[in-house]
Amino acid sequence: MSQYLLPRLNALAPYVPGEQPQDKRYIKLNTNESPFPPAPGVMAALSPERIAQMNLYPDPLCERLTQALANEYGLLTENVFVGNGSDEVLGFAFMAYTDESHPVTIPSVSYGFYEVYAKLYGCKAYSIDLNEDFTIPVEKFFAQKGMVALANPNAPTALALPRDEIERIVKNNPEHPVLIDEAYVDFGGETCLPLLTKYPNLLIVRTFSKSRSLAGGRLGYAMGSREMIADLNRVKFSFHPYNINSLTMAAGIAAVEDKEYFGACVAAIRKTREATASALRELGFMVTNSATNFLFAGHPELEGRRYYELLKQKGVLVRFLGHPSLKGYVRITIGSDEQMAVVLQKTREILSEVGLC
Amino acid sequence: MSQYLLPRLNALAPYVPGEQPQDKRYIKLNTNESPFPPAPGVMAALSPERIAQMNLYPDPLCERLTQALANEYGLLTENVFVGNGSDEVLGFAFMAYTDESHPVTIPSVSYGFYEVYAKLYGCKAYSIDLNEDFTIPVEKFFAQKGMVALANPNAPTALALPRDEIERIVKNNPEHPVLIDEAYVDFGGETCLPLLTKYPNLLIVRTFSKSRSLAGGRLGYAMGSREMIADLNRVKFSFHPYNINSLTMAAGIAAVEDKEYFGACVAAIRKTREATASALRELGFMVTNSATNFLFAGHPELEGRRYYELLKQKGVLVRFLGHPSLKGYVRITIGSDEQMAVVLQKTREILSEVGLC
Repeated sequence: MSQYLLPRLNALAPYVPGEQPQDKRYIKLNTNESPFPPAPGVMAALSPERIAQMNLYPDPLCERLTQALANEYGLLTENVFVGNGSDEVLGFAFMAYTDESHPVTIPSVSYGFYEVYAKLYGCKAYSIDLNEDFTIPVEKFFAQKGMVALANPNAPTALALPRDEIERIVKNNPEHPVLIDEAYVDFGGETCLPLLTKYPNLLIVRTFSKSRSLAGGRLGYAMGSREMIADLNRVKFSFHPYNINSLTMAAGIAAVEDKEYFGACVAAIRKTREATASALRELGFMVTNSATNFLFAGHPELEGRRYYELLKQKGVLVRFLGHPSLKGYVRITIGSDEQMAVVLQKTREILSEVGLC
Repeated sequence: MSQYLLPRLNALAPYVPGEQPQDKRYIKLNTNESPFPPAPGVMAALSPERIAQMNLYPDPLCERLTQALANEYGLLTENVFVGNGSDEVLGFAFMAYTDESHPVTIPSVSYGFYEVYAKLYGCKAYSIDLNEDFTIPVEKFFAQKGMVALANPNAPTALALPRDEIERIVKNNPEHPVLIDEAYVDFGGETCLPLLTKYPNLLIVRTFSKSRSLAGGRLGYAMGSREMIADLNRVKFSFHPYNINSLTMAAGIAAVEDKEYFGACVAAIRKTREATASALRELGFMVTNSATNFLFAGHPELEGRRYYELLKQKGVLVRFLGHPSLKGYVRITIGSDEQMAVVLQKTREILSEVGLC
């Protein structure tokens, strides 16, 4: 750090992304990427002609992309915002709605970045502990003093709340924005999209990184009332008007338009998830009822960190989160059937080596 | 706007980018894009194999790209930061160094976004008027109360300060960061890169959007002391760790590595610029001595807005900035020789139609 950095930022604890080894030696199941390539239409959209036009700025209004999303979800473009990954969308939402005198309420635990944004913008974060079974204590999120932000399905627990429960939270915070991060919803969660027409304080954030196989493209989006989407645009046009590059814009449109490929990928991941969860349970693991593209799993007699380390030694990267209440667990991305077979094989080896089977 | 938006942001006047008509009917010389496609290596780098891997996250550390830039400019990677366009780099720098109690000093006029960032972060912006001849009054930037930010060459004036003058500003603000925005330096400005080893408070910001023909890719970078680059990384990892998508990362590396193409494009633009400037001067225009890829030009008997409107009617888009001290002028991007021939032809028609020749 330099001597010039704002004192507030000296105290930041930046987010630590999952390991991204660039040498590709691992079976990489630690950042919830899709095992499938982007939709065939993405390849076609990124044509030599389009690449040759990279000398030109992209459309700052992202009209064709927001239109494609609006068409897909039955909205108007004024209800859709796109960002450079859902992290940027979340960053803009926190910038719009939180500061020293506007706190945020989040579950502990959830996506770790919410706390980081709170520190970045100097806002107080009220953390509400999960229940013992990792579910979200819905009533405790009522009548908060500022924005409520939660992931549904939640990470890393993989558990989803039904829409009715989300509605109770939204309804019971009429004076504040309620941000529902649906990064994983396509894998089995119940979206709260139908609530948008009823609640002007609801903001839904999603990503192309998981169910749409575009983590490398960096594309996220928000859906909400016209007024809240206007807020996000106000921040964007005060920070980075051209936030979506021209290739990602084209890739995103193609990905949204190929519903068949999207459906097939999601179905395959769900099938692999259920098979892997069953196999792990048979090996003695506790596995939550995942509505996502990952499993939250732990063996009662093997610490999460140890399981993570032993898998890594055997060439499989999963994520150990380190939170005290989660120390028995790891988060395992659902990869291909072949990758999950390796996970199960290596897990059997580990259990045998440590004398657990 | 919603009722939830922070009161401070209600008062924002977001940046208005140059018109980006998506129907391509215009000769578009209003956003300082390069008339040339990206380097041939960019096309090769964006291979079907790479596109097929967009399901994977990019390297959040951007190691290969920062290494390519470090190699190009004789630095270590710890002295280089990359962002989603130089706007994001500027946004992060303002986030790191300005707030309610840390003001910024900027020229009036310069890149219009500096004032927008100041408002976004709630910091006071001290504006220092340009001299009558549009040059920057160097001494007035000494001993400021916070960060100094200026573009060199400046926009839209197109005028460059010599490195010695920049050094005087950097040296006379030892307690504060001095951000020099070198977006246009490749077209004829004198870079202050050699000052980096002497001044830990100097931060140089650049873009791939102009001289490297990658406006559509969104890529900018900063060069500075290890400590200031660490500041920017601290903000980035608290906002959006995966800020550069995988295709732009690959495109950027290829663009930096093709020095020959870069040199040829810059030389061609400079040559076209000089020819266009001469022709406009012959038509009675005042044209500043441009060190950029655009001309700042005005006819003493034709208002800038009127000239802009008449050119637009004739299918040529240039930029009218609207600042009171600049109302006689427009900013004209240097396009291809063919495009500039059209500009000159249309300008002759306009002068004839309004009775000025």
